[in-house]
Amino acid sequence: MQNQLLKQDSIKPQTGTRTRVAVAKGDGIGPEIMDATLKIMEAAGAQIDVDFIEIGEQQYLSGNTSGISPQAWEAIKNNKIILKAPITTPQGKGYKSLNVTLRKSLGLFANVRPVTALHPYIHTPYPEMDVVIIRENEEDLYAGIEHQQTEDVVQCLKLITRPGCERIVRYAFEYAKAYGRKKVTCMVKDNIMKLTDGLFHRVFKEIAAEYPQIESNSQIIDIGSARLAARPEQYDVIVTANLYGDIISDIAAEIAGSVGMAGSANVGTEVAMFEAIHGSAPDIAGKKIANPSGLINGAVLMLAHLGQTEVADNIKNALFATIEAGIHTADIYNEGTSEQLVNTSEFAEAVIARLGETPKNLKVSKLSEGAGTIQIPEYVRQSRKKELVGVDVFIDWKGEDPNQIGDALAAIDAFKLKLKMITNRGVKVYPKGLKETYKTDHWRCRFVAMDATTASAAPVYQPVDYEQVVALLSKLHAQGFDVIKTENLYEFDGTRGFSLGQGE
Amino acid sequence: MQNQLLKQDSIKPQTGTRTRVAVAKGDGIGPEIMDATLKIMEAAGAQIDVDFIEIGEQQYLSGNTSGISPQAWEAIKNNKIILKAPITTPQGKGYKSLNVTLRKSLGLFANVRPVTALHPYIHTPYPEMDVVIIRENEEDLYAGIEHQQTEDVVQCLKLITRPGCERIVRYAFEYAKAYGRKKVTCMVKDNIMKLTDGLFHRVFKEIAAEYPQIESNSQIIDIGSARLAARPEQYDVIVTANLYGDIISDIAAEIAGSVGMAGSANVGTEVAMFEAIHGSAPDIAGKKIANPSGLINGAVLMLAHLGQTEVADNIKNALFATIEAGIHTADIYNEGTSEQLVNTSEFAEAVIARLGETPKNLKVSKLSEGAGTIQIPEYVRQSRKKELVGVDVFIDWKGEDPNQIGDALAAIDAFKLKLKMITNRGVKVYPKGLKETYKTDHWRCRFVAMDATTASAAPVYQPVDYEQVVALLSKLHAQGFDVIKTENLYEFDGTRGFSLGQGE
Repeated sequence: MQNQLLKQDSIKPQTGTRTRVAVAKGDGIGPEIMDATLKIMEAAGAQIDVDFIEIGEQQYLSGNTSGISPQAWEAIKNNKIILKAPITTPQGKGYKSLNVTLRKSLGLFANVRPVTALHPYIHTPYPEMDVVIIRENEEDLYAGIEHQQTEDVVQCLKLITRPGCERIVRYAFEYAKAYGRKKVTCMVKDNIMKLTDGLFHRVFKEIAAEYPQIESNSQIIDIGSARLAARPEQYDVIVTANLYGDIISDIAAEIAGSVGMAGSANVGTEVAMFEAIHGSAPDIAGKKIANPSGLINGAVLMLAHLGQTEVADNIKNALFATIEAGIHTADIYNEGTSEQLVNTSEFAEAVIARLGETPKNLKVSKLSEGAGTIQIPEYVRQSRKKELVGVDVFIDWKGEDPNQIGDALAAIDAFKLKLKMITNRGVKVYPKGLKETYKTDHWRCRFVAMDATTASAAPVYQPVDYEQVVALLSKLHAQGFDVIKTENLYEFDGTRGFSLGQGE
Repeated sequence: MQNQLLKQDSIKPQTGTRTRVAVAKGDGIGPEIMDATLKIMEAAGAQIDVDFIEIGEQQYLSGNTSGISPQAWEAIKNNKIILKAPITTPQGKGYKSLNVTLRKSLGLFANVRPVTALHPYIHTPYPEMDVVIIRENEEDLYAGIEHQQTEDVVQCLKLITRPGCERIVRYAFEYAKAYGRKKVTCMVKDNIMKLTDGLFHRVFKEIAAEYPQIESNSQIIDIGSARLAARPEQYDVIVTANLYGDIISDIAAEIAGSVGMAGSANVGTEVAMFEAIHGSAPDIAGKKIANPSGLINGAVLMLAHLGQTEVADNIKNALFATIEAGIHTADIYNEGTSEQLVNTSEFAEAVIARLGETPKNLKVSKLSEGAGTIQIPEYVRQSRKKELVGVDVFIDWKGEDPNQIGDALAAIDAFKLKLKMITNRGVKVYPKGLKETYKTDHWRCRFVAMDATTASAAPVYQPVDYEQVVALLSKLHAQGFDVIKTENLYEFDGTRGFSLGQGE
């Protein structure tokens, strides 16, 4: 049976459709910058209708631990498009991150953050920078599955999935095509994590082959992050996993000097949310001096997503023309490059006055030059033969000599299973470990079929029945071994689905 | 029983001791830059004796998959100090990374990379930068324990250990003290990974309190990486986990423009290895034009480690004085700032001629102003009461409706265990999931004691016997559920040792 989870529907509707949008005015400076943003969108002729929703501080304080009123949930599910000003999460226990809740519950799998240098108006060493970071948003270490099972060791599961990789990589290439971008770069660490990051990289290469008109390449995340930090102008679109994307999207915004200027999108197959990347700045709330540019850029992303790319270009170009004219809010005002200090609504009026203009020095926005709508095909699960060939049994043991536990386990009558090796923190310590290897109280003991050929460099495994595994666990427990976790070993169509130990 | 793995011995010997060093000349440009480095050390009066060892390309090609001859292993274990030029790993299968082998087998837990701006001689936007990154080197995701157990999902284990955290954090503070550094910054992601990165951060705070004379602070890794990339001059010593450290140490070297200039150390409780961070550059091998500065900086780290901080300062200051004089190898030669183009041995002679000088513009090295030797106390394992209170059973299931598997599991006679919840990629899908949540074929099913109080926001767990877990696994298998892995749930002295599901 196959999943029917991803629809062949377009994520990006056709131009001209009028869309109802759930709008959250947020907390702190939120209402001020949202008013400015809505005013600009109206003047630019955005084809949207607004449905205000209640989320944020007041909802938290009234007892809603999620920060979202039931009516807001309904409006979000009906409208499917959210424009959200920054909100304040009150200090105290039990309040859940609204963004994490929305992201995980609504399947917002892609975080999109374009970062453009606004040199010399915003200081940056990288005036040519114009990059879009597309980050997987739901899985990886951020699934938050953690266990402590011994005194010494705590574990977090990193989960990478084929549907997750396919969706985010496809989205990156479709994004590049839809908005006229030329190149997509993949960043992962598959020289170390050959199965998890290896899957991401493999899917990237598979899907890149379907877009011959778009250049593609891959970099190891450590080198890639370093090059992005030193030569960001070499990048166009970057697609990466959740944790890496978290890091590099912050690097990009920071080195462009644009934390106060950037917007971002969180996109799912059905719902999408758009916002500024900065917070609610309660210290200047109510003063009406906040810079609305971040939220305006969030609105530009929304309009592009809705297929209204010409309106999006018009607003972004007017925003750039305003910045170029030296009409600046206090946060970006400086003697050298600024001409006029304005408040929030004056800034919005200046943008409106420049609708139809294009910037002279800053890069002209040409989202409308892209082609087509963003299509994410339904995930089709492969159906390979999965065969159980062994089990990693993890044991809590406070001893020091691997030969002691190794010899004891090797001597056990293990229902036609045999001990292949023991590792400690991934390094083989039995048989024939090095005495210099440091040992914790967390021992991974690999059992395979008695008739497996394990002596050679290319071991051949043999089928195991799960009943053997259960019987082994029972016997280990009876003999006083403290089994804390198990990981089954599988082959898929005869290919090993597990890593070897370092030194194995 | 406690481990006796870390000795109270000093890692940094007293000044004046003469030390025998295992020296690997390496491949490509390795022999040329090693000759230059040894010549400088000799001229500066370094108290070392040299024992050449065979590692690298020739060893790989002669059939040693580890790249290390048996004699080299012996010399390393006897001498315990290694100075290593870059090596070439031949293309092809079965060759293991020499650095990973040495690091993991010899317990080289700390990677140390100082990065100093050499502006204007080496271009960087950050002329004030002078940071040392101290990276945990053995654990984290780099334990390389990966499993695929369903068609959709691949998993990698992130392991963080208390002894690992204590050693690296202690090393960072001892390093700061020994070499006159003022501040140590911790970077992890403990707002998401509360148990694993939370442990690192907690240990950091515990140990920081023992060094009141050294300033300390913590940043979330995404913000920290971004600030490091944009304002590196704000950092002094940074200590972090393996993956994060891999990323930020590359960022630091790249933005300083110093990939060709930097050295690094890999330090264990018994053995330590010193090297340049660049590769063997086979394209210019034999031309005798390579820049030896990276390896010279590696040698400076080694001499400081050996307590010969005055010799180390002398060499580093002469190196800086040479750079300042515009005496440059081809890789750093440019018309604006260079005076004289030199080859490898001419560069070494220029450094030797400047021993005793200090740089006028570049920062003077003052490693000898630090105090004391680096002490890493023995790890003392706590002994808390560990109690089993449930189990996460992971099931491969190709269905779509969580209520179907949830109701079936809830109805099972589970030996006084009950199903508490099911998550998919960490998000609760049963009971009462949201239909919008995306579901893979990887279902985490949490079972706890029948008499546990789980309805409230603060659940109270009850003891479970592992025999119940084994019986449950047997029954699940008999009823056709494909159990792929298990994670036991424990409390330690009554404190929960596992995370809750998102939405739980």
